[in-house]
Order: sequence, then structure tokens, then C-alpha cells
Amino acid sequence: MNTTPLYRQLANHYLDAIRSGTLKTGERFPSIRLMMEKHAVSLSTAVQVCRELEDYGVLEARPRSGNYIRQPDKPQKTSPIALVQPLDTGVYVGIHEQVSSVLKASQRALIKVNFASAYCAPELYPLKTLQDNMVKSLRHDSCLYGVAGSTNGNSALRSLLARRALTTKANLTAERIVITNGATEAINLALRAVTQPGDTVAVESPTFYGLLQILESLNLRVLEVPASAHTGINLNALQLLLQGPEKIKAMIVIPNLQNPLGSIMPDANKARLVKLCAEHDTVLIEDDTYGDLVDTEQPLSTLKHWDRSDNVIYCASLNKTLAPGMRLGWISAGRWHERVEMLKHTQSRGCEALSQLAVSAFMKTPSYERYLRRLRKTLTQQRQQMSEAITRHFPIGTSVTHPQGGTLLWVELPRRHSSMAFFHEALKVGIQISPGDIFSNAKRFNHFVRIGCGAPYSPKIDEAVQTLGRILKNQG
Amino acid sequence: MNTTPLYRQLANHYLDAIRSGTLKTGERFPSIRLMMEKHAVSLSTAVQVCRELEDYGVLEARPRSGNYIRQPDKPQKTSPIALVQPLDTGVYVGIHEQVSSVLKASQRALIKVNFASAYCAPELYPLKTLQDNMVKSLRHDSCLYGVAGSTNGNSALRSLLARRALTTKANLTAERIVITNGATEAINLALRAVTQPGDTVAVESPTFYGLLQILESLNLRVLEVPASAHTGINLNALQLLLQGPEKIKAMIVIPNLQNPLGSIMPDANKARLVKLCAEHDTVLIEDDTYGDLVDTEQPLSTLKHWDRSDNVIYCASLNKTLAPGMRLGWISAGRWHERVEMLKHTQSRGCEALSQLAVSAFMKTPSYERYLRRLRKTLTQQRQQMSEAITRHFPIGTSVTHPQGGTLLWVELPRRHSSMAFFHEALKVGIQISPGDIFSNAKRFNHFVRIGCGAPYSPKIDEAVQTLGRILKNQG
Ligand SMILES: Cc1ncc(COP(=O)(O)O)c(C=O)c1O
Ligand SMILES: Cc1ncc(COP(=O)(O)O)c(C=O)c1O
Repeated sequence: MNTTPLYRQLANHYLDAIRSGTLKTGERFPSIRLMMEKHAVSLSTAVQVCRELEDYGVLEARPRSGNYIRQPDKPQKTSPIALVQPLDTGVYVGIHEQVSSVLKASQRALIKVNFASAYCAPELYPLKTLQDNMVKSLRHDSCLYGVAGSTNGNSALRSLLARRALTTKANLTAERIVITNGATEAINLALRAVTQPGDTVAVESPTFYGLLQILESLNLRVLEVPASAHTGINLNALQLLLQGPEKIKAMIVIPNLQNPLGSIMPDANKARLVKLCAEHDTVLIEDDTYGDLVDTEQPLSTLKHWDRSDNVIYCASLNKTLAPGMRLGWISAGRWHERVEMLKHTQSRGCEALSQLAVSAFMKTPSYERYLRRLRKTLTQQRQQMSEAITRHFPIGTSVTHPQGGTLLWVELPRRHSSMAFFHEALKVGIQISPGDIFSNAKRFNHFVRIGCGAPYSPKIDEAVQTLGRILKNQG
Repeated sequence: MNTTPLYRQLANHYLDAIRSGTLKTGERFPSIRLMMEKHAVSLSTAVQVCRELEDYGVLEARPRSGNYIRQPDKPQKTSPIALVQPLDTGVYVGIHEQVSSVLKASQRALIKVNFASAYCAPELYPLKTLQDNMVKSLRHDSCLYGVAGSTNGNSALRSLLARRALTTKANLTAERIVITNGATEAINLALRAVTQPGDTVAVESPTFYGLLQILESLNLRVLEVPASAHTGINLNALQLLLQGPEKIKAMIVIPNLQNPLGSIMPDANKARLVKLCAEHDTVLIEDDTYGDLVDTEQPLSTLKHWDRSDNVIYCASLNKTLAPGMRLGWISAGRWHERVEMLKHTQSRGCEALSQLAVSAFMKTPSYERYLRRLRKTLTQQRQQMSEAITRHFPIGTSVTHPQGGTLLWVELPRRHSSMAFFHEALKVGIQISPGDIFSNAKRFNHFVRIGCGAPYSPKIDEAVQTLGRILKNQG
């Protein structure tokens, strides 16, 4: 029996045909439908074949025209996290139970070291400044809590957010921003605005399990599109899916510092993604929770920047960059603004005012950007230290991402390891990690774990990483 | 042509039969189905006939058995707000547009006097205490915003809420309470926990337009059940609807100080409502937003108190009694607790901590109950003054409710008046009122207005009431 997966066999078949000159550079590659017919394979297999060939650099997608054979340029870097299993276009079902059981198990355990959080350690946040600002507002305005705030949120904060967005090259107006209870509520509102229960929504695979929970709670079907730690979502795979029979109503993408991959989409990919979605009438929901944590001099572009047809809904959070306890996020929903405003009003009304005032007061000073720069530098060092520790203590064959910012490392263990077993063993000794299984409904990531390094490296953390290494060695 | 509505003609027919002895005391009254067949009338007409007869005191419903003829006791007080139009069992559609346009018109106008708010004037709230408590928490815990709060909310506050609920005779445990972004989010969570889009949910008619907006935003169908300012929802009408062909998945009732009626359900009605809903497998969502504002020595019972089968979801708010700007509410969802917890987590995560701490600190002192008592007294005086002013300045034939607490008066104008025209005229001179039209999808309340009297009576307010009176006289 041939144990090579079908899509690999077919990919090899086409690679041979290209190498041998049977298929020539510039020639059009068979359409997905033709491949399905010719080889009697499923949509998912056909899609995966193209993805593989694209990864080999021999296939080039031309918008509205199809795939063409191209000369592979210098050998492609292979991703440290190759998505070696076939693309599962199967619809997501019931991961919520699994996520809940993982979260519940963690809540019951006595946690000594938490590597499952995406937050920074409290001491890295500007808590004193924010709390001082709050005290000032409370003293200054004795009627702060006397009236209900507006549904859209504090207008000074909305103006500041719009102004800052200009530098990240998205043109948002304060009037069309709504302050939300975190990015979580923003994404809920975006989805409620543009989908109906039963609709299909695409996400990256792997993706933040919280998104999968939101989608499940709204009775939305989920289609997972492979993503790599280098460039994020695989656009050829997405294109094929968009051309497929299933209508994709919306998709949620984390373009800058994807959770868990840490990937940053190149500008060209961002532009193409926006264009693809617009062409297929698929609303693109941008989750920019981590954008401010990218460690660069110049802020990176958002998907919204590339949006020519008002087809991108921009969602962001202040909880990861400023203070986890504030519960502040925001949404700029463009042509869906009125609907989002109405849904926000019926779902929870306007957000509490005090933290909005405190953030405004901070954001309008130069200390704000200075703080962000310092935070990014600190995190870069923490990621470096954690990455080294993992390399030192985890089994040979482990690979770790090297994201350009943020607090998250995505770790691929040798295949023999089960991340769920690893998770439970670690929990027994008070160490919390995030098993790869909860980042997808496919079984693709059951030997991956996400490790958060939001806390300053310390002997306690080093010891915990050693302990994790020991657990893995005992398992292996 | 007979202009008496059909249901009235039929009710008169049966009244005659009872008076003449054709139908005797103790005899069983024809079932709703039989009436529909016999008189070839619609469900709504048959229901309305029974409601009329019940209002005349000649019909008595016996649970699980049907309606029986009874001797009318001493002449019944007729409600100042007789629901003279036939019961409209029609499904609610599209009031959201109307509510939005009313709210939008108000936002655009320059408001000098706001009678549309259900809140008290800021100076009546314990803002200084709450804000001082907040400052203390901010000074005391320098890491207050450093970590994300729990999904369920502050446990001290949940314990205090559970303890207070004991005195209002509902047995709730702190572990099964979730703190929410106001009653608005609580009701959203309750509905999302027990219904699917397309399901039918019953409400009182009239009811708070915010509930109608929530229901519409969740794609739920709404069935309106008549309610009176004396005893709230008409249970016979409800019973007939529950026995009807349309499955009622849930119903939302405001038992104490209904908005806008100000009605308080007698204990016997509360008990019967809870029993009826349980018998028909209709989840009862209790909206206790105003319970703490009832001006009595002993707190009134909640629906939850009468709940033997864990079929009541209790929702409440702290925004009306403590501070509109806090955005705090809570839900106790009994057997749906886990599902509500999950939905809260996926919808917005836990609420911001500071206001929860400030409320806990206040609620555990004796000043809290003292404050509430004082507030109730003040509001009673304000309602009295407003009611007198309306009687003085509004046209003859106007009637006003006399609720036992709260900030809301429900005013029936002589029929020739249009409340929408009244609303727009008043807005032109900077006075905001709530037109009856938005409290129902039936045209039943288009000569009603809701007047808030949360502010201390003043010459400015008196002048505004005079102006309203003048507008009405010019219209009439
Ligand atoms: C990618 C992503 N989106 C959204 C969220 C939720 O953000 P918030 O805490 O602002 O609701 C998170 C938090 O972990 C996240 O990682
Ligand atoms: C009956 C009723 N339920 C719910 C609400 C909403 O309450 P909250 O402000 O706590 O969301 C109101 C507010 O007007 C109300 O009158």
C-alpha cells in the first residue's frame, strides 16, 4: 500500500511533468475542476495539490485567469513548520467542547507558571499611568458615572485611534469607529453584521481558538485555509476555495503577528488577499489585535490600507498592548457601520467611560509611542530567551517560530509527541501551555504547542522550560 | 354596518348569556378552538373575547382545565388604560426602524428637557461614594488593570447580589451568577442560550422598546401579550396563546415596575405565570431592572422566587439604581448557566473590574439600603408632582398611571392625538418624550406617551410640561 497521501502523489506526478518538460513554463495549469474530474479526487485534495506546487515555487496564480507554470527561482526556504498534512476543507464542528475542556482543566489546576497567556506580564504595562489618569478623571468630573455614555464610545478616543491609524496607513474616520468590549466583541459584531447562522466563514489554519469559539457560538460554519509562519495565509489555497462550490460569506484574517503563527503577511499578499475577497464578495474581517507589537521602525500596513472597495472590517484591541483588565477594543466597519452601531446598542450599549478617558489621556502624549517602542524591545528579548531555552531543553527535532514581535511562539514537536498528553502532564506540575489541537478542528496540530513569553525571563521560567523538556523526554 | 369590533360583539353575546342564566356559574366555558370553529373567528379574536370576559370578572381560568363561568364580584375597577383594541397576535416585524428613527431624531435635536429617559437625575445617584470607592481601589491595587478579569465577574459582588436576592426571596447562588454589560447583555445572553433565530418569543404589550430591538436583532419573532397598568401581563390571554398553534420558546416579562406601564404583578399572578410557562415548556426570562425602585417596606417577590422547575432566567441591572455610566447588570441562568457563561466568554469576555469593586464596597455597607430607601421616597414625590402637572396642563380626557415606584409615567391622550406628531412637535422646541408607538408593533399605543420623571421637579420642568400641554391643545 502506498502510504504517501494522495495529494502528494498527484503533486509529485505534476512535478515530474514539469521537470521533464511535459508541462512548460508559462503554460496554464489544469483548473481545480478539471483536476477533480480527471483524477477523481475531492475538492480538498485538488486544492492541496496546487498548494504543494505553489510551495515548490512552480505554480503562479494570475487573478481571474488561473494557475500557470513558472520557473522555480532559487530554492525556496522551507517553512520550519511545514503543513505536511492535506488541506482539510472539511467544515469545522464542535471544537468548542475541546477548547472549553482545556480551559476548564486549566482553571481547576493550581498554576505556577502560565505559558498559555498571550498577555504581557503586568509589570510591562503602563498601569501606573493609566490608573493615575483614572484617578484624575474621577476627581475632575464628579458626574462621570451619572449619565450613560454614547453607544459609539468616547469621541476623543475615537479621534486618537483614527489619527494613529493614519500612520499605519488605514484611512478611518472617528465617526465610523465604535469602541467595543475588546476585539472579542468587535469580531462578534462584524460577524453578526455580515453573516447569518449557517453561513460559511473562512479562517487561517491554525488560528486563535477564541475565534473558533466565536464562530461556533454564532452557528457559523468554518472553513480552514492553511497558513504558514512565514507569510501567513496561503493565498493560492484560498483562491481555489473561493472558486469552489461553497459560498464563503466572510473571512477572518490576522495579518500582522498571527496567533499562533506569529506570521506577518508581506504587503503584496495583503493587497492580493483584499482583492481576492472583494472579487468573490467575501467580507474580509481584519483582526489587528497584535499590530502594535510588531518590532519595526515603521508600522506595517493593515489589510484595511489596501481596501479599495470598502470590503474590509477592521477590528482591534487595546487589551494586549495597554492593559488586559480594561476590556477595550474597537471596530471600523465601513459601509456596515450603521448596522454594527445598532447591534452594539442592542447587544451591550456603550462601553464604560473611565478606561476610555485614561487611554485617551495617555495616547495623546509622546510617552505612548515611547512606551510601545520599549515594550517591543523587551518582548523581542523575551522571545529570544524563551526560544533559546526551548531549543536547549526540548527534544531534538523540535522547531520554534521566530516572529517579528509579540509574545507567542509556536512550537512543533517531533511527530511522536501528543500535545494533549503534554498539556495534561504539564498541568499536573502547575505549568500551563496551549496544546496545538485547539487551534484548528483538523488534527493537523496535535504535535504543536503555543508558548507565551510575555513575562521577563527568570530562573523560575527557565526551570519550568526544563521541566517541560523532561516531560517530553519521558513521553518520547 | 356594525362598527363594534367582532370580539366585542361576541363578548357581549356571552355576557348576555351569563346574565340571562343560559351560561351558569361553575359551568365550563367553550374552549378557544370551539369558539374559533363555532363563530368562524381567528385565534386572536377568540383570545380577545376571553380576555374581555375575564376583565368583566365573569371568567375564571383553572390551570390544565380551562375557563369557567364565575360570579362577578364587586364591580371591577376599570383600568385607566383600557386596552380597547383587539389583541393583535400578529408577529412583530420591523419596529427597529421606527425605534431607530425616533432615537436618531432625538440625537440630532437640541434637547433642553429630556422626559424620554428612564434614569434618575445624576444628583440622585451615589456618585461620590462610588467614585471615591474607585479611587481607593485604584490606589490600593496598583495592578488592578494588569490582568484580565474572570468571565463571570467579581466574586465578592456576586456573593453580595446572591445574599441580597435572598431577601427578595429568590434563591440564587453566587457561583451561578454572571456579571454582564447591563441588563441589555444579560437579556441577549438569556435569549441566545434558549432560542434559535426564527423562534417565537412573547413579550408584554406594551413593553420596553429596547427589548423589541434586541429580539429583532437576534432574528426572533415576537408575540405581544396584552398587559395592564394594574396587574401587568394578562395571564388568560397568555394561557390561550400558549395553548395556540404557535410554539412560544421563551417570554420576557418585567414583573415589578413594568416599563412603560409601571405595573406590579400580584404574587398570585407571578406564581401562575411561572407555572404556566413551565407547563408549556416556555422559558421565562425575568427582567428585574426596576425591582429595587419599588416604594415598599418589604421587597416584592421576583418571578424566580416562584420557580420550582428551574425554568426562570433572572436578569437585572445596576444602572438604573446606582449609576447609569457603570454598565453593570447580571444574570442567573440556572440550568443554562454553563451555556450563558460560554456565550458571555465568546461575546465579550468578563466585565471591567473597577465598577464591580466600587459597587461591592458600597453594597456591603448599611448605607446602601438607606440610599435606596431615600431614592424611592424622592422618586415617589417626583412622580406625584409630574402627575399633577400633567393633569393640570394636558387636555381633558388624558389619563396617567400611578405606579408604585420608579421614574416612568404612561400617559394616555385623548384618541384624537397622535403621539408621533406630538413627539416631533415637542422635539422642535427641545423637549424629548417617548411616543407610545415604539413600545409595540401594534398600532395600539399611538395616542400614548411615556414621560420620565427621574429629575427633581423644577420651574423649568413645569414650564416644559405646560409647553407640552399647549402643543396638544393646538393639535386637538
Ligand atoms: C487574535 C486575537 N483576536 C482577538 C483576541 C481577543 O481580544 P480581546 O481581549 O481584546 O477581546 C485575542 C486575544 O487573545 C487574539 O489573540
Ligand atoms: C425594562 C428594561 N430592561 C432593560 C433595560 C436595559 O438595562 P441596562 O441599561 O442595564 O442594559 C432597560 C433600560 O432602559 C429597561 O427599562
